[in-house]
Amino acid sequence: MLVLIDGEPGSGVPADDRGLAYGDGVFRTLPMLGGQARMWSRHYAKLAADCRALAITAPEEQQLRTDLERVAAAHPDCVLRITVTRGSGGRGYMPPPQSRSRCIVAASRLPEYPASWPREGVAVRHCTIRLAVQPRLAGIKHLNRLENVLARSEWNDLQIAEGLLSDNNGVVIEGCRSNLFILEQGRLLTPDLSGCGVSGVTREAILGKGAGHGWACAVEHISHARLEAADAVMLVNSLIGVWPVARLGDRCWNDFAAARQLQDWLDDLAAASR
Amino acid sequence: MLVLIDGEPGSGVPADDRGLAYGDGVFRTLPMLGGQARMWSRHYAKLAADCRALAITAPEEQQLRTDLERVAAAHPDCVLRITVTRGSGGRGYMPPPQSRSRCIVAASRLPEYPASWPREGVAVRHCTIRLAVQPRLAGIKHLNRLENVLARSEWNDLQIAEGLLSDNNGVVIEGCRSNLFILEQGRLLTPDLSGCGVSGVTREAILGKGAGHGWACAVEHISHARLEAADAVMLVNSLIGVWPVARLGDRCWNDFAAARQLQDWLDDLAAASR
Repeated sequence: MLVLIDGEPGSGVPADDRGLAYGDGVFRTLPMLGGQARMWSRHYAKLAADCRALAITAPEEQQLRTDLERVAAAHPDCVLRITVTRGSGGRGYMPPPQSRSRCIVAASRLPEYPASWPREGVAVRHCTIRLAVQPRLAGIKHLNRLENVLARSEWNDLQIAEGLLSDNNGVVIEGCRSNLFILEQGRLLTPDLSGCGVSGVTREAILGKGAGHGWACAVEHISHARLEAADAVMLVNSLIGVWPVARLGDRCWNDFAAARQLQDWLDDLAAASR
Repeated sequence: MLVLIDGEPGSGVPADDRGLAYGDGVFRTLPMLGGQARMWSRHYAKLAADCRALAITAPEEQQLRTDLERVAAAHPDCVLRITVTRGSGGRGYMPPPQSRSRCIVAASRLPEYPASWPREGVAVRHCTIRLAVQPRLAGIKHLNRLENVLARSEWNDLQIAEGLLSDNNGVVIEGCRSNLFILEQGRLLTPDLSGCGVSGVTREAILGKGAGHGWACAVEHISHARLEAADAVMLVNSLIGVWPVARLGDRCWNDFAAARQLQDWLDDLAAASR
């Protein structure tokens, strides 16, 4: 499928790219549906913020919009991955003073998740690997993702939709590729990501929407015990939307009303951003 | 300069490489001098061990030797970077069951460090970023190196040869691109890397050589206070060899006898490995 490297079709990234050498870059994954990149403005804002956090020059939004139009013409329904690296650089960790960032836009097939998962919920597990605490990189969707790779390697069971990640202190942070919400006594809570984890666009959108609808929303530390005691648990990201959690080990949930509400909010946001 | 991708000259790495996508790979940096890759057997063993730690198939040593011969013919004196990634993969963190690893061998110019540094010592500083503790990745020279990039971005002063990295607990771990030794009451000590840091080939070689020569060598936790109280401090890696530290802030050192000894050991090892 189509790959654009700095706006030009191609498939080869220079071997001296710092994204390859050091994971020195950031990325976004989002669906394109009917030729529209879903919640694009939020994704661009996050991409630009993540670049800024690493002192990488973000591509202009207009350049990316041009890329997206080309992708849409070829693949109106696909997954977009947008990677921005610090570009080519000589040997050594020091960022070259004049480095020109590189932007890679790649389309791939939409995933085919079971249709029952958003409605009837998913089974999840705890991963054994713990996320390291690194406040300087926390929240950023950067290219240093070996922890996620190792975590996702922990299970093969197709019935397990996601693995939950905790930090060194045993506090629940996120899913391998999703953010987490819990419902606790009518409050919508999501883990604090100031030490590790990726602060996703969908998480931010839901926090904003919830507050706008008068829900009590908060960012808090969530222990394993608190997670298991929650009235509902939900996983969110740009591709899956919202999946209610139906099972974690022996603990089962079956009230998915909050998940429906979050799904509706996302549908509203996507419709409004068209 | 020459780049070999899976043994073939080229400069483009497929955009779907997992090294680029997630930093899903490992690497080595070593000098080639007079057409000989210095301490090659040790580097290959470490490359293979690091691959194994991430369940990546290591390239056969014979394949790499063939690559090195091609590089040597073109650039008998250069820096070699050998990168092994998990290869191409679809979207998603899960390693593809059948992934074929990719090997990138790239030559670059030897660095030109001041000739005085190995003899008269270098000035170093403490970096403010702290290394996150991640035992699952500690010791491995993997491609997730944003901490090093951020650390190396902390100073521009050409008089500062290296920055020292401490972990979340404030214990000294290594330099941005080097391992650390201290001399303390006749004992040669290097920081414990079980929580973070890269366990380099030169560090291992020196530990072995020191023990072989009857030196008291040990791996220990080294606090900032202990570092400053040390009788000597040394930085080591495959490219720099051994640099004695002459200054860290207000603390100065001027007895470089231990550094000379370590330099002699490395020269012996390099001669023996030819």
